[in-house]
Amino acid sequence: MSIQPLLNYINKHITLTDKEAEILASKVTVRKYLKGQYVVQQGDVCKIECFVVKGCTKMFHVDEAGQEHVVMFSVEDWWTGDMGSFITQTPADFNVQCIENSELILFHHDTIEALYTEIPKLERFFRLIIERAFAASQKRIVRNFSLSAKDRYLYFKNQYPEIEQRIPQYMVASYLGITKEFLSKIKSEIALEA
Amino acid sequence: MSIQPLLNYINKHITLTDKEAEILASKVTVRKYLKGQYVVQQGDVCKIECFVVKGCTKMFHVDEAGQEHVVMFSVEDWWTGDMGSFITQTPADFNVQCIENSELILFHHDTIEALYTEIPKLERFFRLIIERAFAASQKRIVRNFSLSAKDRYLYFKNQYPEIEQRIPQYMVASYLGITKEFLSKIKSEIALEA
Repeated sequence: MSIQPLLNYINKHITLTDKEAEILASKVTVRKYLKGQYVVQQGDVCKIECFVVKGCTKMFHVDEAGQEHVVMFSVEDWWTGDMGSFITQTPADFNVQCIENSELILFHHDTIEALYTEIPKLERFFRLIIERAFAASQKRIVRNFSLSAKDRYLYFKNQYPEIEQRIPQYMVASYLGITKEFLSKIKSEIALEA
Repeated sequence: MSIQPLLNYINKHITLTDKEAEILASKVTVRKYLKGQYVVQQGDVCKIECFVVKGCTKMFHVDEAGQEHVVMFSVEDWWTGDMGSFITQTPADFNVQCIENSELILFHHDTIEALYTEIPKLERFFRLIIERAFAASQKRIVRNFSLSAKDRYLYFKNQYPEIEQRIPQYMVASYLGITKEFLSKIKSEIALEA
């Protein structure tokens, strides 16, 4: 398995030499996961940040009452991992689970500093993609406050049409912060309006 | 006005030479704002990212019904600005307003690339602080779903005790996604329990 999809993605932001691409390949791991398999488990220290080559993952928190709260889905060319746990090496607040058979490229906590030292322009690459992720996250906080559940659903559907098709409805409901019954009601309403 | 508070902050993460500190000083602006003054206005393109030397700002979105939704407060040694607008140079979704007389250090969109070129280690600096901000933002999304309003308030109060003292209650309520009447009720309940 090659890291070519990751190189293609990185080369949209910065230009790696062949030598740098080789160094990168030597320090990351390409790994397959089955549907249902956990990549990160809440309570464990998260040792990896992951690039999704193929498949789909969900990142979610289980609260004290045992309820799941989905914070993010990741498909091809997206990233996943518990960033807070990864950077502080403290127990993860989130699980990352594959909801399809998936292929991920893993960046490891114990070699990422060596990667930054050997390929300093990766600092720029990760700065650029995390800026984008942070901006998206702030907008989501506001949508959760300011939009109705129906408008949040329509936003999700319009923004990520291909993701909605791939994900069970109860997970979409969790991502939107509503019950699956309420999502079902919203979808019926929308169908009637169409 | 000097950029020393910014240099002290940066030096916790990376080490700048005197020459680099001089370059930095030549490309940022130290600016005072009065309480009430806007730093960024929703709908305008955000041209700056700001380090707070002194004072307190709120970042908020005004929805179509005219309601304010506070997404972030920033005090000394924190940052503010509409990151999404700054990186894409599209109209801002957020306002940034000073809620105290404030002193900010502004990084400008039209010189930040030159800064990264002349001081490449700033890529690392900004990567590190944005990683932290992104992780905090993801945790907040989950708290907003999984915690009751009362527990969200207690978390805010414990996490940022000095900030809560400095901010009008109706803004705290907006940050928590509740009305100020409901916050007032929560605080009475907590007082009775104490």
